[in-house]
Amino acid sequence: MTYTLVLLRHGESEWNAKNLFTGWVDVPLSEKGTAEASRGGVLLKEAGVAPDVVHTSLLRRAINTANLALDSADLHWIPVKRSWRLNERHYGDLQGKDKKQVRDQYGEEQFMLWRRSYDVPPPEIELGSEFSQDADVRYAGEPIPRAEALKQVLERALPYWDGEIVPDLKAGKTVLVAAHGNSLRAIVKHLDGVDDQTIAGLNIPTGIPLVYELDEETLEPTNPGGTYLDPEAAKDAIAAVANQGK
Amino acid sequence: MTYTLVLLRHGESEWNAKNLFTGWVDVPLSEKGTAEASRGGVLLKEAGVAPDVVHTSLLRRAINTANLALDSADLHWIPVKRSWRLNERHYGDLQGKDKKQVRDQYGEEQFMLWRRSYDVPPPEIELGSEFSQDADVRYAGEPIPRAEALKQVLERALPYWDGEIVPDLKAGKTVLVAAHGNSLRAIVKHLDGVDDQTIAGLNIPTGIPLVYELDEETLEPTNPGGTYLDPEAAKDAIAAVANQGK
Repeated sequence: MTYTLVLLRHGESEWNAKNLFTGWVDVPLSEKGTAEASRGGVLLKEAGVAPDVVHTSLLRRAINTANLALDSADLHWIPVKRSWRLNERHYGDLQGKDKKQVRDQYGEEQFMLWRRSYDVPPPEIELGSEFSQDADVRYAGEPIPRAEALKQVLERALPYWDGEIVPDLKAGKTVLVAAHGNSLRAIVKHLDGVDDQTIAGLNIPTGIPLVYELDEETLEPTNPGGTYLDPEAAKDAIAAVANQGK
Repeated sequence: MTYTLVLLRHGESEWNAKNLFTGWVDVPLSEKGTAEASRGGVLLKEAGVAPDVVHTSLLRRAINTANLALDSADLHWIPVKRSWRLNERHYGDLQGKDKKQVRDQYGEEQFMLWRRSYDVPPPEIELGSEFSQDADVRYAGEPIPRAEALKQVLERALPYWDGEIVPDLKAGKTVLVAAHGNSLRAIVKHLDGVDDQTIAGLNIPTGIPLVYELDEETLEPTNPGGTYLDPEAAKDAIAAVANQGK
């Protein structure tokens, strides 16, 4: 027997479209992102994959992606759990900055290190600054970061994975995790045992449910890498990201 | 000290607009209802009323009202709990029927008895029929009704009030309940001690948050009847309903 886990990356946000570093800044989905989210739910319904519970971050682009996808899957009524531990990577002092300007200012090498290295975080954000979350009530009392590389995302996501998601899986529930590029990459790294170099080149397309079947004893995927519900669209999206730098 | 409870009735649904008995049939909000829900969140934000937790029914018109209102209040991230015990009154065999046709068929007196009496339920719905919920997985294993008057709504809502909402209030949380005309009337009857005759004439307007301050010892309202966040609009809406029959 296997457990079923579904990962869903939120659709395009207004800042994706503007090419700004977003991180924990709580921007809404764009019109395109809204449509992607609804279509994600249609894909679930067509595939007969029916989550029993959904886990989201505390950011509206993931929350609204879950809301829209579940509504179009007729599963708007399932239980919801949320945690900052599923938030996007904290981009530190880069949050709110234009990606091109950062690249011009710091150079290509530093820029790519911050974007893609496993364990080099960007500079920490200044407390009290415009794009800092230190005064945000939703994080009150939590040990939130001031900048993260993917390594730190995995470290803070794991306690939630072990403490909240695994128990739902072991109860036999089909679990949907609606989250972000980097919090989902962290989960994939953990599940598939991806090494620190390879994870840099792994991208998860937006809005296409990624379904894992996990062995009930080991929680290792019986379908390593998972299965996208729209494999053609996923392949195209992954190829498009791979070609961006060329 | 007092506890703060906010009641929010969902906005117009597609079947309100079509004049059909809805009950537990899971119809979506109309465009007008969507706008009402978002405005409800703006009213919360402008008044500085910030729920710490939201309780909804299992029906999408209440769930999406909560989602939209909380998003426009910047409170999309708060914890969510859901229960069928907050669902609209089950309209039994009338579900899916045109209100005018029912009135013509059964006569004005019977029609008003089913609509407004405290304890006369409509005929029970046939199991397996088009608008029955007996095969709906979201209610599996629950003692769901086949027809209800307001009295039965109050009886099945009270265990949830006592078991889930009161503990949140006593923990000092500001609680939002996003639900339906009749499940909210049941709560109001309980809170304000409204008698069985008077409750027939009590209507709660859609989309306007109704705020109660509850005594921390007795849980009785220190503002009996509650306070609407847009009192002028609430007064107009209540007067419009009262004039419908004239």
